[in-house]
Amino acid sequence: MKLTIALTFGACFAAGAAWAAEKPAPAPNGIELPAYYKNWRVIGVSHRQDKESLRVIVGNDTAVDAARTGNTHPWPDGSILGKLAWKDQTHPNWPAATVPGEFVHAEFMIKDSAKYAKTGGWGFARWLGMEQKPYGQDASFVQECLACHDQVKDNDSVFTHPAPLP
Amino acid sequence: MKLTIALTFGACFAAGAAWAAEKPAPAPNGIELPAYYKNWRVIGVSHRQDKESLRVIVGNDTAVDAARTGNTHPWPDGSILGKLAWKDQTHPNWPAATVPGEFVHAEFMIKDSAKYAKTGGWGFARWLGMEQKPYGQDASFVQECLACHDQVKDNDSVFTHPAPLP
Repeated sequence: MKLTIALTFGACFAAGAAWAAEKPAPAPNGIELPAYYKNWRVIGVSHRQDKESLRVIVGNDTAVDAARTGNTHPWPDGSILGKLAWKDQTHPNWPAATVPGEFVHAEFMIKDSAKYAKTGGWGFARWLGMEQKPYGQDASFVQECLACHDQVKDNDSVFTHPAPLP
Repeated sequence: MKLTIALTFGACFAAGAAWAAEKPAPAPNGIELPAYYKNWRVIGVSHRQDKESLRVIVGNDTAVDAARTGNTHPWPDGSILGKLAWKDQTHPNWPAATVPGEFVHAEFMIKDSAKYAKTGGWGFARWLGMEQKPYGQDASFVQECLACHDQVKDNDSVFTHPAPLP
C-alpha cells in the first residue's frame, strides 16, 4: 500500500512537471485554457452522429469527485468539465468501429455560481484544433453555448450524465 | 507553479488513498485487476457499432507516456491498456448523440514481452459489469482475445491508435 501511494505520488509529480508548458491565448471572455486537462480523469464519452465526432468528457478533481459521488445537482463550485472532440474515422482493421480522426477542439465549462451567475453559473470556453486557437470573435460567443445548454437547464445546464463505473 | 505542483501532488495522494479498496477476484489466468485504472489518463475512444457500445481507452503512466511520445511500435514493457465499455444509449435531450448506458466491462492488456511471449507479449484479462466478475471459465479464454487481436499483429496486436492531442 505504501509503495502504491509512493508510486502514484511520484507519477503525478512527474506529470505535473511535464505540463509546465506555455499556454495558448485565453478565450475572448478571458478564460484561460486549464493547464493540465489532458491528465484529467474520465467522466463520460459520447458519439455525436450529427457532428460526426467522438467525445471524451473529463473533469478536474472537483468535478470527478462530484461525478463519482453523485453530487452533480448542481455541480459544486470549482468543477471544470472538459470535452475533447475528434472527427469520426473508421478503424482500418475493424469497419464497424468508429475511432478518433483529426482533433477538433477542447471545450470547457467552469462552475462558479457567483462569477458566472448570468450564464447559469458556468463559464464557457473552447480552443480549436491542434494549435488550440481560442474560439469566438468576442465574448458574445457564449450566447451560442447557451442556445444549446439552456435546453438542459434541469440538469444544471450540463449535457453529460456521468458514465456508470464500478 | 509551485502551488500547481503541490495541488496536483495533494489531489493524486487523496485519489490514491481513496482507491485502497478490496479487489475483485483475479482473472482465470491469474491477472489481477489494476487497482487504480479508473484514474488513468485517456489514450483513445471508440464506438463499436457491431457491439452497440462506446469505449474509452485509458492507460497506466507507462502506456500514456508511450502513447504521447509516439513510442508504441512496440509498446514498452510495463504498459497497461484499459478499455472501459458501456452499452449505447440515446441522449435524452439530444437524439443524435449516443451516450453511455449500462457498464459492460473493463478489459486490459498488460505488456511483458518475456512473461507473455506466447501471446504476442501481452497478458489479457476482462472483468464484467458493475460487479467486476472475472471473464472466462479457465485460462483458455485468452484464445478468444487472440482470435481478434492477431489481425492487428502489425500494430503490436493493439487495435487502439492513440487519439491525437494538442
